[in-house]
Amino acid sequence: MTETRVSSATKEVVIGFGRPFVMIGERINPTGRKLLAEEMKSGDFSRVEADAIAQVEAGAHMLDVNAGIPLADEPALLARAVQLVQSVTDVPLSIDSSIIEALEAGLAVYQGKALVNSVTGEDEVLERVLPLVAKYGAAVVAISNDETGISEDPNVRFSVAEKIVHRAADHGIPSSDIVVDPLVMPIGAMGTAGQQAFALLRRLREELAVNTTCGASNVSFGLPNRHQVTGTFLSMAIASGMTSAIMNPMHAEVKSAVMAADVLMGTDRDCAAWIRANRDPNAPTGEGGRGGREGRRRRPAG
Amino acid sequence: MTETRVSSATKEVVIGFGRPFVMIGERINPTGRKLLAEEMKSGDFSRVEADAIAQVEAGAHMLDVNAGIPLADEPALLARAVQLVQSVTDVPLSIDSSIIEALEAGLAVYQGKALVNSVTGEDEVLERVLPLVAKYGAAVVAISNDETGISEDPNVRFSVAEKIVHRAADHGIPSSDIVVDPLVMPIGAMGTAGQQAFALLRRLREELAVNTTCGASNVSFGLPNRHQVTGTFLSMAIASGMTSAIMNPMHAEVKSAVMAADVLMGTDRDCAAWIRANRDPNAPTGEGGRGGREGRRRRPAG
Repeated sequence: MTETRVSSATKEVVIGFGRPFVMIGERINPTGRKLLAEEMKSGDFSRVEADAIAQVEAGAHMLDVNAGIPLADEPALLARAVQLVQSVTDVPLSIDSSIIEALEAGLAVYQGKALVNSVTGEDEVLERVLPLVAKYGAAVVAISNDETGISEDPNVRFSVAEKIVHRAADHGIPSSDIVVDPLVMPIGAMGTAGQQAFALLRRLREELAVNTTCGASNVSFGLPNRHQVTGTFLSMAIASGMTSAIMNPMHAEVKSAVMAADVLMGTDRDCAAWIRANRDPNAPTGEGGRGGREGRRRRPAG
Repeated sequence: MTETRVSSATKEVVIGFGRPFVMIGERINPTGRKLLAEEMKSGDFSRVEADAIAQVEAGAHMLDVNAGIPLADEPALLARAVQLVQSVTDVPLSIDSSIIEALEAGLAVYQGKALVNSVTGEDEVLERVLPLVAKYGAAVVAISNDETGISEDPNVRFSVAEKIVHRAADHGIPSSDIVVDPLVMPIGAMGTAGQQAFALLRRLREELAVNTTCGASNVSFGLPNRHQVTGTFLSMAIASGMTSAIMNPMHAEVKSAVMAADVLMGTDRDCAAWIRANRDPNAPTGEGGRGGREGRRRRPAG
């Protein structure tokens, strides 16, 4: 059973097969959040801290921290954000940037074993990011695109993931420290996006035995009632083997879909978390279903 | 692609791979519904008619009709219910009884090609139900238990399904007219129930190439917020290959999970049904997600 262990100074989180799904809060990201971008650029990190606390309260097991602001000093901003978030929460972080200097600045101040987000299958990126991951003993998100872009062929994306795993091994990074992101396109733009993701997630688990993640909100972009689509996508991806996602735990439909999926995968032991979260002494629980089909059927023989 | 075609006098429904999921309304079933049972027994079928109409309005593509009332004349009641439901709706029916005389009475009055619910892997049941299915040119739900009960071993349940398919062939019934029910236990009683069902559904699709169904409400029996658990189960089962279910389309959480799953499987073309059902000119659709991860990523290359 593959286990990816990440940690803060005081807390370890394990992403793994047969374990509860790991929710990585997506909110600390200025891309598309104009106000947050302006505040961070001007040195005001109060919203970063508030978003960190709120997401952990909503159930995030980890937080993604991104400081990608055009024309800003991203390495300095990311390092500052990482330090502030670590000062107000104890969950492990995913340090998120496409700028390698920013990843390094974040890693340099991080306390614990971080998740580096991300490395792609592009040779130049691999040869710059993997040594950093190895140097800091971090885990890393591997995105299955390369110099040719994001292939629409799941077999090509699988091969890219495989290439990253092999290249990481050359740097002494075990495959258990690689969390593959199969890349999920908006379903409204590409009707095969879901099926491709599910098929790829299954192969990544069964053939490559790696943990997996994705930016879940993307799948529902442009659709009405999108949180329901995102939540349903997550449960279907979990059934296909996905073990973590970068998502928003503050959306009730998204979080409850993940919690119900944990119940159905048997990773919420005795449904304890579900029962705790949904406890209401006045709620009926036995209505319906009882009589329908099972009424006339025998119990399991074993 | 396997297709199971069922029909009423005027309408055909196709259960099939790559097609929208088929929702079979579960409500017309007196088991556990004391009032309905008393009414049906005394010849009052008004609630049966109302339940039929309401479920079709809620989106049911087919209706299950069960008249299992202790000490009642089930063959007569089931025939009457089938006729009345066919007089008020045009969807195909699943004729549901464990009493073979009742199945025959229902089939004798049914207009169109029915789904017979059900046959098990018990030799005596097979040799009585399959000739009926063949005689009326019906399709049939195959439940994967046999004389030894319901095995907890998914491999045994798969073998029972395989046995039913082979035996049906001896009676001239093609496997495309068999819809296998892998039997889903309550997850609150058996933590492996979900994973077993998902694994079995995949094998039934990939190795036996048959359509599948299940009584979905059963999985959440005894849990709080059970409709969310049932809906999430359905979406995960759909990701695992399930093509129909006996369920309650009047529960919003259950129906919207199925509709979102159709979007994500690519069977709701251009998300048209989803957009129609969720249209709200004031609702935001672009918020979140856009910026997060895909902002810095390329579009598909192909």
